[in-house]
Amino acid sequence: MRVALLTVGTEILFGQIVNTNAAYLSSELQNLGFDVMYHYTVGDNPMRLKDTLRHALSDCDMVITTGGLGPTEDDLTKEMIAEVMNDEIVTSEEYRQILVDFCNRHNYPVIENNLKQANVPKRARIFSNSQGTAPGFLLENEGKYVAALPGPPREMKAMFQEQLKPELIKMQDAVIYYRVIRTFGIGEAMLETKLLPLIDGQTDPTIATYAKEGEASFRICSKRKTLEEAKKAVDDMIVSVNQLVGEYIYSYDDEELVDVVGKMLIEKNISISACESCTCGMFTSRLGSVSGISQVLERGIVTYTERAKMEELGVKQETIDKYTVVSPEVAIEMVTGLKEKTGSDICISITGYMGPGGGTEKDPVATAYIGVSYKDKVYSLRHYRRDVNREWNRNYAVLKMLYEVYKNIKED
Amino acid sequence: MRVALLTVGTEILFGQIVNTNAAYLSSELQNLGFDVMYHYTVGDNPMRLKDTLRHALSDCDMVITTGGLGPTEDDLTKEMIAEVMNDEIVTSEEYRQILVDFCNRHNYPVIENNLKQANVPKRARIFSNSQGTAPGFLLENEGKYVAALPGPPREMKAMFQEQLKPELIKMQDAVIYYRVIRTFGIGEAMLETKLLPLIDGQTDPTIATYAKEGEASFRICSKRKTLEEAKKAVDDMIVSVNQLVGEYIYSYDDEELVDVVGKMLIEKNISISACESCTCGMFTSRLGSVSGISQVLERGIVTYTERAKMEELGVKQETIDKYTVVSPEVAIEMVTGLKEKTGSDICISITGYMGPGGGTEKDPVATAYIGVSYKDKVYSLRHYRRDVNREWNRNYAVLKMLYEVYKNIKED
Repeated sequence: MRVALLTVGTEILFGQIVNTNAAYLSSELQNLGFDVMYHYTVGDNPMRLKDTLRHALSDCDMVITTGGLGPTEDDLTKEMIAEVMNDEIVTSEEYRQILVDFCNRHNYPVIENNLKQANVPKRARIFSNSQGTAPGFLLENEGKYVAALPGPPREMKAMFQEQLKPELIKMQDAVIYYRVIRTFGIGEAMLETKLLPLIDGQTDPTIATYAKEGEASFRICSKRKTLEEAKKAVDDMIVSVNQLVGEYIYSYDDEELVDVVGKMLIEKNISISACESCTCGMFTSRLGSVSGISQVLERGIVTYTERAKMEELGVKQETIDKYTVVSPEVAIEMVTGLKEKTGSDICISITGYMGPGGGTEKDPVATAYIGVSYKDKVYSLRHYRRDVNREWNRNYAVLKMLYEVYKNIKED
Repeated sequence: MRVALLTVGTEILFGQIVNTNAAYLSSELQNLGFDVMYHYTVGDNPMRLKDTLRHALSDCDMVITTGGLGPTEDDLTKEMIAEVMNDEIVTSEEYRQILVDFCNRHNYPVIENNLKQANVPKRARIFSNSQGTAPGFLLENEGKYVAALPGPPREMKAMFQEQLKPELIKMQDAVIYYRVIRTFGIGEAMLETKLLPLIDGQTDPTIATYAKEGEASFRICSKRKTLEEAKKAVDDMIVSVNQLVGEYIYSYDDEELVDVVGKMLIEKNISISACESCTCGMFTSRLGSVSGISQVLERGIVTYTERAKMEELGVKQETIDKYTVVSPEVAIEMVTGLKEKTGSDICISITGYMGPGGGTEKDPVATAYIGVSYKDKVYSLRHYRRDVNREWNRNYAVLKMLYEVYKNIKED
């Protein structure tokens, strides 16, 4: 099925926001086996909206719109879709009541503008909005489809997953199955080189690599008549993949490293504490995003100054004087002090140069020393990755810390 | 002048990359006073490329394409533009020599595919590429323009700034000046209501509000004959704006709150420490993104457990038992302990429920108590903002902490 995406929103034409909705939907549709042929963006202008809808429908079987479903005067998407699809706008009494209930529940005024959101195309299948108030819908006319989703990404994603995706699955002519495999410690070019024997001449399953914020991932995808066939093809390929790059893989299901590590800590009931200098709490903050982490995350200490390192962790002035504050010796003293203080099962420390200033010839910006204390081991390691900018450098260093925790507790 | 942007690239239709080029060019064009009417994205397909170009030119004066200028077989943008604009493709001997020199300088093989990049529309004004090899161009036909830029963002931005922008400035019929004003503590709807007397019936300068990750901002924009006139119109409007919503404004130049706070702390040499429970180091980590913050950021302590709060900050067991751990009393004891320990000029603490679990009837998920110690004041405040999800709740709470620091040190 050929699909066009139509984004409605002046703020995108102004360049105020990047159109991430189109990327999200494209990726989802691609994974369902639909062909995305066009992206369009127009403002809240009736003529251009209708004209673009018609242009998109002339070459595609389905148009998915995002945006322009809100309660204000300039939200026109529904009306224009109804006109192009030979339908009319009516008030859904059922949805009107949902809106009234919502306003009452949240103490919002029940004003006509808000209730306008209950106006929908007469023949449409209505999608309720679990994250907001504006409903979406799916409308068919002479074998062509238009689906309308809200503009705010959180609302759009929820409505797509909960309501539109099940409809699309019913329309599929083949079954797609894929897994996204995530690695750490190998670049995309090297990953592709290692996988080349499996990529070359392979038509199904396909393997495609891509890079994302310092990590390389790849997608194994099969399109077959049945789900069982597609699954088997992908799983067989994973066996071959493991022989080539298994040592770098930390997830076969597109999970974030922080989620893999957090869940593993919780499941194995391993308590953790961290002390951070250059990453300034980013490791602890990132780990804090995992729901339920409070069961195992004991303490985090940001010791940016030398004084804080000495007072909080018992780092010795003479160690700093002899080896400098960015050194394996200081990383070890930090993590040892933290272990004594907290008794957490695993403790981790970091001290480094994240830029833009600082660094030495031996240890340039983007270098850090990481200390780990786990069971009867205490060790340090040097981390360096090409200096990009302060935020990227911190991000890389935190990924490295997470991976070090992963390796230790994985081996248990 | 009415402009359409046409992105050529299958990887965008696959959702592999987000179309940041369109946002960048839109923002630049908007600031130059050009009206961006459409964004289009198509793959490297000759029919759809030509058809979309024609559709865009039918309603606009200029189309700017990005992508599809490379050396491979499927790069067709130039050929299709030439066809639509009644031109023909010829080899630029001058550019061919540039490419040969480039290959020799970088030890690349001088292969026909690379030299294909010297093929350009005959009547076009050629743009050289300071960041890569593929040239771009500007082509006119019967009063309509097509500009072609490369797809990689680094090459595209450089070519736009160095070559296309000077051409566009020559075509300008007016000068644009604007400022983006950022607020905290007021929603977009209320902000718009308060600004309504200035928005209504105002044609220049214009005021447009928008919401972004928990904050409301607005843009004051003037389009005049000269820069001086436009600047004066905007600055006069700011005086009126200040009377209506001045108390909520923290930046007149689109700065992030964390940058405003970080710079202010550094400039005034005010040392800061933070202790965090529910935000789990996010405040400290966010502040750590400000370059130079190491001069004033003394310490951060993440005390997720009760034990950590007692050991690190001297919170009393009886206080927790009597008031619960999420209470103004605990927030005060946390910040008092931190002040005693660090002596930092300003200390801030937070304890709350960020979800998905936890919360009470009185203090539901997304409630937190913040403690502040500054000069001779120690106080706590209750923060609540509608529960969205764990990450948003933490993000809002951190914004609130930043704003509380801002208010205190601003008043100095």
